[in-house]
Amino acid sequence: MSHNLDHQFDRAIQLSGDAGRYTGATTVEYANMVGPFGGVLASTLLSAVLKHPECQGEPVALTVNFAAPVTDGEFDITAVPVRTSRSTQHWTMSLMQNREVAMTATAIFALRRKTWEATDSDMPQVQGPDDLVALPEVMPIPKLFSNYDIRMVRGNIAPLPQAEAYAKDSSESVLWVRDKPTRVLDFPSLTAMADIFFPRIFVRRQRPAAAGTISLTIHFHADSRALAAVGDSFVLGHARAKRFYNGYADQTGEVWSKDGVLLATTSQTVYFKE
Amino acid sequence: MSHNLDHQFDRAIQLSGDAGRYTGATTVEYANMVGPFGGVLASTLLSAVLKHPECQGEPVALTVNFAAPVTDGEFDITAVPVRTSRSTQHWTMSLMQNREVAMTATAIFALRRKTWEATDSDMPQVQGPDDLVALPEVMPIPKLFSNYDIRMVRGNIAPLPQAEAYAKDSSESVLWVRDKPTRVLDFPSLTAMADIFFPRIFVRRQRPAAAGTISLTIHFHADSRALAAVGDSFVLGHARAKRFYNGYADQTGEVWSKDGVLLATTSQTVYFKE
Repeated sequence: MSHNLDHQFDRAIQLSGDAGRYTGATTVEYANMVGPFGGVLASTLLSAVLKHPECQGEPVALTVNFAAPVTDGEFDITAVPVRTSRSTQHWTMSLMQNREVAMTATAIFALRRKTWEATDSDMPQVQGPDDLVALPEVMPIPKLFSNYDIRMVRGNIAPLPQAEAYAKDSSESVLWVRDKPTRVLDFPSLTAMADIFFPRIFVRRQRPAAAGTISLTIHFHADSRALAAVGDSFVLGHARAKRFYNGYADQTGEVWSKDGVLLATTSQTVYFKE
Repeated sequence: MSHNLDHQFDRAIQLSGDAGRYTGATTVEYANMVGPFGGVLASTLLSAVLKHPECQGEPVALTVNFAAPVTDGEFDITAVPVRTSRSTQHWTMSLMQNREVAMTATAIFALRRKTWEATDSDMPQVQGPDDLVALPEVMPIPKLFSNYDIRMVRGNIAPLPQAEAYAKDSSESVLWVRDKPTRVLDFPSLTAMADIFFPRIFVRRQRPAAAGTISLTIHFHADSRALAAVGDSFVLGHARAKRFYNGYADQTGEVWSKDGVLLATTSQTVYFKE
């Protein structure tokens, strides 16, 4: 994996160290409302596996848990290959700050072989990104959104422009997204984009609330060749919550290429406060 | 948590030991085609947290990874509370056999507080379980299915009876399920039921294939009071795969109470061989 550190995303997920013990740091570009963007932290944990000398295959599943708030500054990451078979490799990772665990994670990497394939899900039929205006960089959007060109199709939140895209009693959002400046899609950037959606409670209730992801799972349905074929094009993100109940909601989503390839499916558990 | 060991499910998830270091064993009742039923192993890892003296709150998220085949016999489980805050507790777990890691897992427990709630997903409108005949216990159904009363609505697999319920170019299954003999629903049994579906590749292609879950995530949308309200009634399971690609597919599903409460959402990564 080569890093072109000209792009702020590559600087954000950059790690030093080797053989599973790494040091990184949050960057000001990817600040969220409080602390750094969780999607980039998830990417950084995945990158710790990708740069490990024993890494075999490509990611098929990733779960990242936010155990405590990550604060701005340095952090340590460990990545351990706990079991390797002929076709799969299982990893456990953790992110530490001040000698305490702030994040835990597991990843499964696999050597894919050509098989029969099928997609049993419908890509939302929507306007193309060129027919939509970019989400403006205005408050109260956190700084991290300056790193993305987002074209909202539907499921915006009330304080933002593009009122026509507001949801009505629905937690669903559909949006086009790509890095700004553009950057060729890879597993780390796809991981971050799978977490680009506003918390579903904002969309469903059309008002702000305290909310934060506590667990994020991504199932990857593409290999690096399929991601390279996407290049720096927009991808289509689709997210909704199926249930909000006593402080926790899910977020279930998909990320599609413009050509209709389902690149990833994702689910989250999100804390919210009324 | 009290265990009534009269039921074979409670014997299957029984652990000895304390403070996060436990020993258990597979039971013949829950044999799958090869090795033990993964859903019961996932339940056993969750039970290791539930019986830990430091356990706080109730499960909201669980991810279990199958790193290597678990063989019939004894196993060791560790469960570690890596971070506890006022409202959440993060756990890492592992299952070892022959001193090697066979499974890894993470769980998040939380103290729920009363909030606004909503369901943004439609329960499939189907016949009730009393209008459907039980799935017969015939080969080639693995032995584990003897522990469940299953009423297939749609998405059966070809070698089994109830041809009217076969899928046509669809990976979707809908079924009613409860323990046999009946048992009041709790987090461990809900965990196992969230994994009761045949591999989606069987349904989509209407023929057997080598297949196995390698990662299973469950987001719980109910607390123990809501589960107790279900009692020993049937619950409705709904599963489909969104994409099959080069050896791996997802399985995305929901488990509903008869009264329309969304109890859990789940996603898996499943290995398949053509």
